[in-house]
Amino acid sequence: MAIWDDLIPDSDKRMFAKAGMGGTLGFGQRPAVVVVDMTYGFTDSRYPLGASEMGVPTTQAIQRLLEASRARRLPIFFTRGLERTSPAQKGYWKMVPNIPSEPGLPDHNQIVEELGPLEDEVVIGKLRPSAFHGTNLVDLLVFHQVDTLIVTGMTTSGCVRATVVDAFSYNFIVVVPEECSGDRAVVSHKVSLFDMHMKYADVAPLDAVLNRIAALPSS
Amino acid sequence: MAIWDDLIPDSDKRMFAKAGMGGTLGFGQRPAVVVVDMTYGFTDSRYPLGASEMGVPTTQAIQRLLEASRARRLPIFFTRGLERTSPAQKGYWKMVPNIPSEPGLPDHNQIVEELGPLEDEVVIGKLRPSAFHGTNLVDLLVFHQVDTLIVTGMTTSGCVRATVVDAFSYNFIVVVPEECSGDRAVVSHKVSLFDMHMKYADVAPLDAVLNRIAALPSS
Amino acid sequence: MAIWDDLIPDSDKRMFAKAGMGGTLGFGQRPAVVVVDMTYGFTDSRYPLGASEMGVPTTQAIQRLLEASRARRLPIFFTRGLERTSPAQKGYWKMVPNIPSEPGLPDHNQIVEELGPLEDEVVIGKLRPSAFHGTNLVDLLVFHQVDTLIVTGMTTSGCVRATVVDAFSYNFIVVVPEECSGDRAVVSHKVSLFDMHMKYADVAPLDAVLNRIAALPSS
Amino acid sequence: MAIWDDLIPDSDKRMFAKAGMGGTLGFGQRPAVVVVDMTYGFTDSRYPLGASEMGVPTTQAIQRLLEASRARRLPIFFTRGLERTSPAQKGYWKMVPNIPSEPGLPDHNQIVEELGPLEDEVVIGKLRPSAFHGTNLVDLLVFHQVDTLIVTGMTTSGCVRATVVDAFSYNFIVVVPEECSGDRAVVSHKVSLFDMHMKYADVAPLDAVLNRIAALPSS
Repeated sequence: MAIWDDLIPDSDKRMFAKAGMGGTLGFGQRPAVVVVDMTYGFTDSRYPLGASEMGVPTTQAIQRLLEASRARRLPIFFTRGLERTSPAQKGYWKMVPNIPSEPGLPDHNQIVEELGPLEDEVVIGKLRPSAFHGTNLVDLLVFHQVDTLIVTGMTTSGCVRATVVDAFSYNFIVVVPEECSGDRAVVSHKVSLFDMHMKYADVAPLDAVLNRIAALPSS
Repeated sequence: MAIWDDLIPDSDKRMFAKAGMGGTLGFGQRPAVVVVDMTYGFTDSRYPLGASEMGVPTTQAIQRLLEASRARRLPIFFTRGLERTSPAQKGYWKMVPNIPSEPGLPDHNQIVEELGPLEDEVVIGKLRPSAFHGTNLVDLLVFHQVDTLIVTGMTTSGCVRATVVDAFSYNFIVVVPEECSGDRAVVSHKVSLFDMHMKYADVAPLDAVLNRIAALPSS
Repeated sequence: MAIWDDLIPDSDKRMFAKAGMGGTLGFGQRPAVVVVDMTYGFTDSRYPLGASEMGVPTTQAIQRLLEASRARRLPIFFTRGLERTSPAQKGYWKMVPNIPSEPGLPDHNQIVEELGPLEDEVVIGKLRPSAFHGTNLVDLLVFHQVDTLIVTGMTTSGCVRATVVDAFSYNFIVVVPEECSGDRAVVSHKVSLFDMHMKYADVAPLDAVLNRIAALPSS
Repeated sequence: MAIWDDLIPDSDKRMFAKAGMGGTLGFGQRPAVVVVDMTYGFTDSRYPLGASEMGVPTTQAIQRLLEASRARRLPIFFTRGLERTSPAQKGYWKMVPNIPSEPGLPDHNQIVEELGPLEDEVVIGKLRPSAFHGTNLVDLLVFHQVDTLIVTGMTTSGCVRATVVDAFSYNFIVVVPEECSGDRAVVSHKVSLFDMHMKYADVAPLDAVLNRIAALPSS
């Protein structure tokens, strides 16, 4: 029973089955974790782009993932917005500026305190949906000879999905722990998880991913 | 009344409204057209990855778009699969090889005859979802000083969406004529159109796009 | 009489002539300027990577170019180093850290005061030689529909050349005003100017470039 | 005594020494080989862009490298030109079309027979200097978890150097076996080898690289 089952009709599922889609990719020997845009602007409903409903539980799930990943010394990367001072940097996003609805909120572009980053974890500034576009992320993954990228953060149908498609395109095995990805909207969230699992990535329960991490050979 | 209205609940719509999403980007002065993967393998149900249900009407709609675009001499680009001889080129696609279910079918990687390409239209071989990844498409658009990319083809939730996200990221105004994008599955199709229209692109009726093309200044 | 004439023997020149190399690309209608790494760390000999010999006159030449470019409101982009906190960000550069040889020097990563940037000019942080690698520069140029990139800065055989090769690859017409590019070493400087002029770019006197800018149609 | 010693004056060498440049990067555990543009059009003087003087010995050196690399089953990639039918694909190369000077020559874009490729070796079509630009090369290297890229081919100051800069930027350890890189012009060849060795790559004798390959642990 998958999270998307209530939304995908059997006629659609038959088309994916005919194409042999879905299935399981597995898990490599050298995973890394990317935490996409887990900032107050996305996780806190007091921001126009924020959604506490999924933001809070997603934060908690990522905390568990990071604890296990730090214990095994996996490379961990965070993204957040890069400062944009010109219209060309802003680009054609169809959304309002992320200004807090009340005074005294933490900065919209600050990563939520519960997650970090720790001192040796790299924070990547980005302007576009994918954590790869206009950044050095692929260089960093090459340096660590990563074979598997665990993608987490917000939003599932936005920056997480764009990052998943790019990671897949660069030939990383992509894993999305289901609880570690959140969105502002339920249907977009579920259907993006479904699409990614059908084509590009393994969408798996967090516990299964934690088991995979625990089973990694000592390095 | 949008094609996705039956799927997106009001609670989701409120979240997008709060974020100021949706709206209209407009249309520039130098549009180009990309036709993604309109090959027999995707448009013909006799292939495992094919879906005639949307493949046939999508072909017809793209024909209308191409006729108008050729009349105004817009740059037109087609994509199809690049030959892949090694596992590294194949990558981690979660699907079966596209082998025809019956003898005598046209090659799965041939662009459907109704669409072309004409002799001076460039065909780009690609290995990954986006028409930009591992290709020279952005170079070609820079050469023509394109400001607006009209994205069409199959599938909406796959290669079309990946191409839209990349085109948006490179700062092209992105337009998706609704009838010119098809998928194998209804929910994925509708929700991807919704997601793209909320965040990255104008999903618009083909007639509206044809009007925009007709209104371009003579060059 | 070109700056490289004393270094390139006739036998080499004959090979380039046979290949039809050199010649002139011209100049488009929408140029932009990129100023690569004109920081104290590269222009001031009191830094290990710095070279005042060419750094000072290169600064003066770029000042003249910027004055003319600002008068015509051309888009102007600066690059400098992005903060690097991890070995993966540092990568495999074969050089020492850029630590000042005496106290009280301006920060090595600060752009020299004479050049700016002005408030509306974008500064791009980069980790690698090319101003395009791991940055959003191509997005910014697409936004402005740039057709011609005037590349300046330091060093000619390093970051300037890498930026020129990428700009050429993305299909911008590339112009290098000879006096606006500097290096720490004379032979590398001259031969890189020669190589770029033979294959990828027009290396031209600053005065010729200023004439081209002055002749642009009013926008 | 390096090949570039007769060209680089002591005053230049002092500047590189001050910057701590040069030195040795080493050699990783998972090398791959890329053979850039070793086609008749570049290696045979009967083509305008061809230069048998270095093309013939470079071919012989690469043969030795490939023999050793095949024995250890290293991933091997070849590049050659991608067919270009439009001005946008051709771009702004400053050179003549590569048309043979006499009838009966092998196709200019055919890889020289002595080198291969073998059936399971990937041939990458490219339009621009770097083997990475507009291609899937980085994806293929990620798939094989490559840490070291041995770059060979023609020309040293053109496509080889552009490929080296990109490989360095993606965080591969880059090795250029000196005899395995050729050019049409002596000064450009030597100074590019010098520049690359100072900043981005280890330029090393072929025998030293063969020793490194022989010393790889059995996989």
